[in-house]
Amino acid sequence: MTYNIAILGASGYTGAELIRLIAGHPFMAIKALGGNSKAGQSMATVFPHLRHLDLPDLVSMEEIDFSGIDLCFCALPHKTSQEVISSLPKDLKIVDLSADFRLRDPQEYERWYGNPHAALEQQAEAVYGLTEFYREEIKGARLVAGTGCNAATGQFALRPLISAGLIDLDDIILDLKCAVSGAGRALKENLLHAELSEGYHAYALGGTHRHLGEFDQEFSQIAGRPVKVQFTPHLVPANRGILATVYVKGDAQAIHKEMKKAYSYEPFIEVLPFGEAPSTRHIRGSNFCHIGVVGDRIEGRAIVVAALDNLTKGSSGQALQNANLMLGIPETEGLMMAPLFP
Amino acid sequence: MTYNIAILGASGYTGAELIRLIAGHPFMAIKALGGNSKAGQSMATVFPHLRHLDLPDLVSMEEIDFSGIDLCFCALPHKTSQEVISSLPKDLKIVDLSADFRLRDPQEYERWYGNPHAALEQQAEAVYGLTEFYREEIKGARLVAGTGCNAATGQFALRPLISAGLIDLDDIILDLKCAVSGAGRALKENLLHAELSEGYHAYALGGTHRHLGEFDQEFSQIAGRPVKVQFTPHLVPANRGILATVYVKGDAQAIHKEMKKAYSYEPFIEVLPFGEAPSTRHIRGSNFCHIGVVGDRIEGRAIVVAALDNLTKGSSGQALQNANLMLGIPETEGLMMAPLFP
Amino acid sequence: MTYNIAILGASGYTGAELIRLIAGHPFMAIKALGGNSKAGQSMATVFPHLRHLDLPDLVSMEEIDFSGIDLCFCALPHKTSQEVISSLPKDLKIVDLSADFRLRDPQEYERWYGNPHAALEQQAEAVYGLTEFYREEIKGARLVAGTGCNAATGQFALRPLISAGLIDLDDIILDLKCAVSGAGRALKENLLHAELSEGYHAYALGGTHRHLGEFDQEFSQIAGRPVKVQFTPHLVPANRGILATVYVKGDAQAIHKEMKKAYSYEPFIEVLPFGEAPSTRHIRGSNFCHIGVVGDRIEGRAIVVAALDNLTKGSSGQALQNANLMLGIPETEGLMMAPLFP
Amino acid sequence: MTYNIAILGASGYTGAELIRLIAGHPFMAIKALGGNSKAGQSMATVFPHLRHLDLPDLVSMEEIDFSGIDLCFCALPHKTSQEVISSLPKDLKIVDLSADFRLRDPQEYERWYGNPHAALEQQAEAVYGLTEFYREEIKGARLVAGTGCNAATGQFALRPLISAGLIDLDDIILDLKCAVSGAGRALKENLLHAELSEGYHAYALGGTHRHLGEFDQEFSQIAGRPVKVQFTPHLVPANRGILATVYVKGDAQAIHKEMKKAYSYEPFIEVLPFGEAPSTRHIRGSNFCHIGVVGDRIEGRAIVVAALDNLTKGSSGQALQNANLMLGIPETEGLMMAPLFP
Repeated sequence: MTYNIAILGASGYTGAELIRLIAGHPFMAIKALGGNSKAGQSMATVFPHLRHLDLPDLVSMEEIDFSGIDLCFCALPHKTSQEVISSLPKDLKIVDLSADFRLRDPQEYERWYGNPHAALEQQAEAVYGLTEFYREEIKGARLVAGTGCNAATGQFALRPLISAGLIDLDDIILDLKCAVSGAGRALKENLLHAELSEGYHAYALGGTHRHLGEFDQEFSQIAGRPVKVQFTPHLVPANRGILATVYVKGDAQAIHKEMKKAYSYEPFIEVLPFGEAPSTRHIRGSNFCHIGVVGDRIEGRAIVVAALDNLTKGSSGQALQNANLMLGIPETEGLMMAPLFP
Repeated sequence: MTYNIAILGASGYTGAELIRLIAGHPFMAIKALGGNSKAGQSMATVFPHLRHLDLPDLVSMEEIDFSGIDLCFCALPHKTSQEVISSLPKDLKIVDLSADFRLRDPQEYERWYGNPHAALEQQAEAVYGLTEFYREEIKGARLVAGTGCNAATGQFALRPLISAGLIDLDDIILDLKCAVSGAGRALKENLLHAELSEGYHAYALGGTHRHLGEFDQEFSQIAGRPVKVQFTPHLVPANRGILATVYVKGDAQAIHKEMKKAYSYEPFIEVLPFGEAPSTRHIRGSNFCHIGVVGDRIEGRAIVVAALDNLTKGSSGQALQNANLMLGIPETEGLMMAPLFP
Repeated sequence: MTYNIAILGASGYTGAELIRLIAGHPFMAIKALGGNSKAGQSMATVFPHLRHLDLPDLVSMEEIDFSGIDLCFCALPHKTSQEVISSLPKDLKIVDLSADFRLRDPQEYERWYGNPHAALEQQAEAVYGLTEFYREEIKGARLVAGTGCNAATGQFALRPLISAGLIDLDDIILDLKCAVSGAGRALKENLLHAELSEGYHAYALGGTHRHLGEFDQEFSQIAGRPVKVQFTPHLVPANRGILATVYVKGDAQAIHKEMKKAYSYEPFIEVLPFGEAPSTRHIRGSNFCHIGVVGDRIEGRAIVVAALDNLTKGSSGQALQNANLMLGIPETEGLMMAPLFP
Repeated sequence: MTYNIAILGASGYTGAELIRLIAGHPFMAIKALGGNSKAGQSMATVFPHLRHLDLPDLVSMEEIDFSGIDLCFCALPHKTSQEVISSLPKDLKIVDLSADFRLRDPQEYERWYGNPHAALEQQAEAVYGLTEFYREEIKGARLVAGTGCNAATGQFALRPLISAGLIDLDDIILDLKCAVSGAGRALKENLLHAELSEGYHAYALGGTHRHLGEFDQEFSQIAGRPVKVQFTPHLVPANRGILATVYVKGDAQAIHKEMKKAYSYEPFIEVLPFGEAPSTRHIRGSNFCHIGVVGDRIEGRAIVVAALDNLTKGSSGQALQNANLMLGIPETEGLMMAPLFP
């Protein structure tokens, strides 16, 4: 059985990553590629690395006939996504990669994103797309909201510890190092090679990054009480990867044991031996997340380090993993490729 | 049917690349990994990006029982390879990635590599592994000698033109830009990140690079007369990729037409529309080779640009392509993954 | 004696590089910084790496009082430069870094740049700014037109050979590898870090790059007959540097000898021992140009390799060198800093 | 007046950086360059970027006549340094860049470095070389022990806050991002370009990095009680730079105010406006340190970010700053060059 797939926003990095992954998927066929700003162009023009594939040309979204589509990926910018999705057929299965349907509380959405939500009905039915923790809901969902790449990395490091009550909830620091493709293909001065390479810096300091909305929502729900973490992202001169260095108060050995247990059956989460820490270079281009736990010289403190590829496990790989579940396909289909190193 | 595979030299980059590719191959299973300097270690230690795979530990070559092996890849250093291969079972199918069996004339071998050949019997039976031009011989071969990564790139750009008699054979210049993984995992000062990044230079100037032996052998054979090209490689601060800018005297349109024709049925060679030139970023991590042809403002001159990934199409991907042929598996099996971009 | 300096176009890379160099110059003081698009901003905002300097804020060009200015650098985009310069005081000393006054023949200008020249009077008086070859004219010039960065690199490699009649004028190939800062601070998709890093490609192939106008003009003048070279630039993932690999027909030893002689008294040109080739990493951030000469295995052919920093010797350093001459300051003042390595 | 300078360990990165800086120093002349492993070679061979300088060849240390030397920089590996320094003339002024004389307590030295100290007499007289805080002692010192590059960055961010009693001493987290040149020119697999570029990771986790010895010593002394910080360094794919993201508990505004006050007269320390954070790209190649202070969304927490160039302000620039003081030269001489950007 082959499912027909549409991708909206196919001219951006997450769109291209979806195509890369689906091209090797035995049960999916790409039937439509939407990209309004580049409608009419071939994918070989927009992304020459995909020129060997037999792909439909980019079209405007209005041109797509969704009647034959089994599942649609929306890799559109935030805010655009909710407008588009509210106009799509109500029974179309959708995996959204934007931030638009991640926050369940419309007021929280407005607080972090600055505008009232324009698709409240869809928001109400959306399931949060962190596969490993929402697997059953995702299987039955019509609309899945992909977790933010930073938010996913931080949650992989912290959810089992909060669930198990192993750490001090009032003293959690996430220091993230993010690669540049997470910023997308937007033309910004600070993303130019000449500006970015050979230097690095912190941004969105002090608790202003929007992915905090997801951390607050999820961690508070697990803990059954408000949890606020400190979160500082840094932009690093590399193209793919997120490394979360998470500082917690708790027993390192107990944390490692819990982590091993929590992820023991997960196909994409690798917990390293105690005392080892992961590197982004060892998950690049793959759907894997590597997690390490180390104890600090100061007793009662532990460092959890998680690494994943922001374009794969952090967005498009995660999206495909969810789509597999929604369509009844084995969850790992099309996603087991090894990382690219060097 | 699953074929049992051994890889010798599995602790180097081409060894790791073979594992990456074979991990997704439906008809091959890795049964032994040889790596004398790291024997006893797990692959998760040597190459943490492969830790999700269920792989045998590295062993010394003497420990491997070749009786159950259907095909062996040798990703060993030059000179070591001939010594090892001469000691392997005489009926074992072998794909060698080293330079040891590329030159048919032992004197040419000695001239370029500085030592007498130590496995003349095997050398006599070796088939040159440039798949697209030796396909039939490879199908029946026991021992295939992988083409050098630079030599492959230059030949993809030039062979059809020499065969068709379209260019001046006495005035061919190959200016190659090579990424650093081609130098392997050796500990050399000039390969350190602090030395290499942010700078670039020409090396092996003036006709001293060993891959010239392959160019001389192959081009002279096609032309039916001695052909000597000028070849200058440059080391560029990137990890994967070779870009060959080839300056020839001939009619650009005729060259492009011939190129299109020559590669029209090749699954891995993409000839771009006339006037367009390829980029290494669009073939990274894949087995594809992109070729462009442009006419110069000076009449009667053309520029051919070819791009491929040195670790994939330039060595391990090419090796797997050959192994598929030798085992009767479809040639493209395990090799159709899209490039990784960005 | 301190000269008062104005810089127009101070918000671009060549503007910033001028400030970096002049900041350490004992006889120059920056009195005005023009940058219309960012007028009103402090330099600490536009270029935080200059925040330690006591600099005037950016103003629009109309706000600058040129009466007290001894010399003005114009680091403006092509075409804008001619419009601005034609409106500046007629006795103001000017070093222009744009392409607007490099070509002496207005028809050639129009052919390469696509628009009629709008400041023919100034063009007529402009002196070509390749210091080492126009030193005397520059000393007495009011308006100096900075050589293009690629054009400078190619000329350093070739001028002495053409002058001395040592090479075949009809068979010269320049294969240039250029770093990204040469493209300036413009927001273009292909200059994003995620697009550019880890890949490289040829551009403006076949004789379409505008710097060919300079090559044609200068080489033909030296030779006393039309000389047309082949020139293919490549974009390489590094921020600073141009490496020109020049293929010529001639005697390599004679070429090296001539090169040593021609540059023996030049403070910024270093000719390497015969057979050695330079690297961009060894001139980064400096005003030096390193040149190597190597003989090819094919008799009668030589390879000349020249390396310089496009922002320093290729534009802003060269501009300051010329300004020193125009003001009667020792030519090397403010320019002898060592390269930055690593 | 010109002082005669010797540099031991001139074939490493900090040695080369010293030469780069001193080459532009009006009151210093390099008279001897020691480098045992490369003795007999010219600096143009070892560091081609210095080929324009008129420098003595490298010699073994035994060959150097120290009688005419006014000051000697020791840029030798740890442990070697103490052996060499104990054998140098007892009245020779020395700036040591190694870790050997940083810890005042020999037991602490042995605990962090694993061997008993072999030059206790010299250790007793050594002055800790963090110029901004030991200025007066350095002026009169014979032997100055350069601060570690990570240790310097962390101290610039924290010393004023500890002195002023503004932060919780039991909850300080330093998350450092270090560029690769800090690891020196050693041949290690993980420092190869192919390994390092495009990836990043944490190392020496959990309180095992040796620079903790310096933090403990200095912070405890300022506080008048034991202070233990958490410190996790990360290796980032860039050549120069350290970025310290420091998490503290205290009032952000008060911290910023104190920081401004503490560094108001310091020529090399730039405190950014409240809420802004520095980038390593804006201090590259310079002796400046940029510091930012931001308040977190969680009340009572602040983030201090400090950036410096590990080879300049973190080692060789700092060393020259100290040498200036020891010789009675203005402290900033030879050190005011602007950063190199891009």
